[in-house]
Amino acid sequence: MKLYDMRQAPNPRRVRIFLAEKGIEIPFEEVDIQAGENLAPWYLSINPRGVVPTLLLEDGRMLDESIAICRYIEGLHPEPNLFGGSAWEAADVERWQRRMEFDGMFNVGAAFRNTAHAYAQRGAPGAGPPTPAIPAMAERGQLLARQWLDRLEERLAGREFIACDRFTIADITAFVSLDFAKWVGIRAGVAHANVAAYHARIKARPSSTA
Amino acid sequence: MKLYDMRQAPNPRRVRIFLAEKGIEIPFEEVDIQAGENLAPWYLSINPRGVVPTLLLEDGRMLDESIAICRYIEGLHPEPNLFGGSAWEAADVERWQRRMEFDGMFNVGAAFRNTAHAYAQRGAPGAGPPTPAIPAMAERGQLLARQWLDRLEERLAGREFIACDRFTIADITAFVSLDFAKWVGIRAGVAHANVAAYHARIKARPSSTA
Repeated sequence: MKLYDMRQAPNPRRVRIFLAEKGIEIPFEEVDIQAGENLAPWYLSINPRGVVPTLLLEDGRMLDESIAICRYIEGLHPEPNLFGGSAWEAADVERWQRRMEFDGMFNVGAAFRNTAHAYAQRGAPGAGPPTPAIPAMAERGQLLARQWLDRLEERLAGREFIACDRFTIADITAFVSLDFAKWVGIRAGVAHANVAAYHARIKARPSSTA
Repeated sequence: MKLYDMRQAPNPRRVRIFLAEKGIEIPFEEVDIQAGENLAPWYLSINPRGVVPTLLLEDGRMLDESIAICRYIEGLHPEPNLFGGSAWEAADVERWQRRMEFDGMFNVGAAFRNTAHAYAQRGAPGAGPPTPAIPAMAERGQLLARQWLDRLEERLAGREFIACDRFTIADITAFVSLDFAKWVGIRAGVAHANVAAYHARIKARPSSTA
């Protein structure tokens, strides 16, 4: 197996942390999205949508979408469980993973992609027609990412983890999104003591530097 | 169990089709999102994010996020399998479900929410601060939803289903998104014969009217 990666980007980081939590090492190959390498013919021949990360299997099959890659690894290496065990757990983890992704990461992503100079004509990730930056979309992303932070503060009152009372994929998405949010000037403030303590706890895990 | 539903909306429809494929009947209660009933105090006391659908369990626990609700039902009623069996299948279904959701449903949703009169101050779904419609976001949604349709046409060449060679949750999201796309004037045209035939096949399933 090999992972097409970008060191700085939030999505591949989710997969790297997941692998580290499982104790698995696989080779990474860097793809520079900012320089547009994800849109180069060699990469599009592997992943026509031009998104990173991509997992390439020994038999040539490819898998994209970070959460799908993580779920594949979970299937091969079930322990420690990071997607939930029982029907309720699996649903609860899915729900919280999605909230962290849609309310957190996607809003931060909208704020970032629609203001960053390198993405002036690539507001939407991946291959496709030019998508000029939309400043109002960045503003909405800022507004909703801050709402996500406020809600996360409430969720974390008296809780160590986001779901299931143990570390799961929902924590990976939350943690990576919190770091990503700093890129657009959003960070846990005085009103977010629970979030700040949570971030410090997750950062203390060896996997956080993966 | 009880499902807070909105007959017209695409997300609850995914859950209703899923239940029908499993042969399960549960009571539904209608929530009129267009009229803002999802933001009424009684509904926010059940689901503070103000999104629909919500599954309410007998013991009072609530579950939101359509795909999380479906995954819970899959855990309770494993057959017919709709989320994939092996590690590869589960990952492949997840990948395709996400592509149909992110590239299809979300782009159609952006095109719809940012032009529909009823949502002029609610461009983003659910509870939160006003989010005035962003016309440029609707345009980008149109552009990318059409790209999704083109890619779906390629995917369906010689294939009966989106993933796994059988009906899965990825087909539910694809089918519901295709119908949702008509709301914003996007439909399979002469260049989308595979998509049109696929839509007819899925529509012929008894679950499609759920």
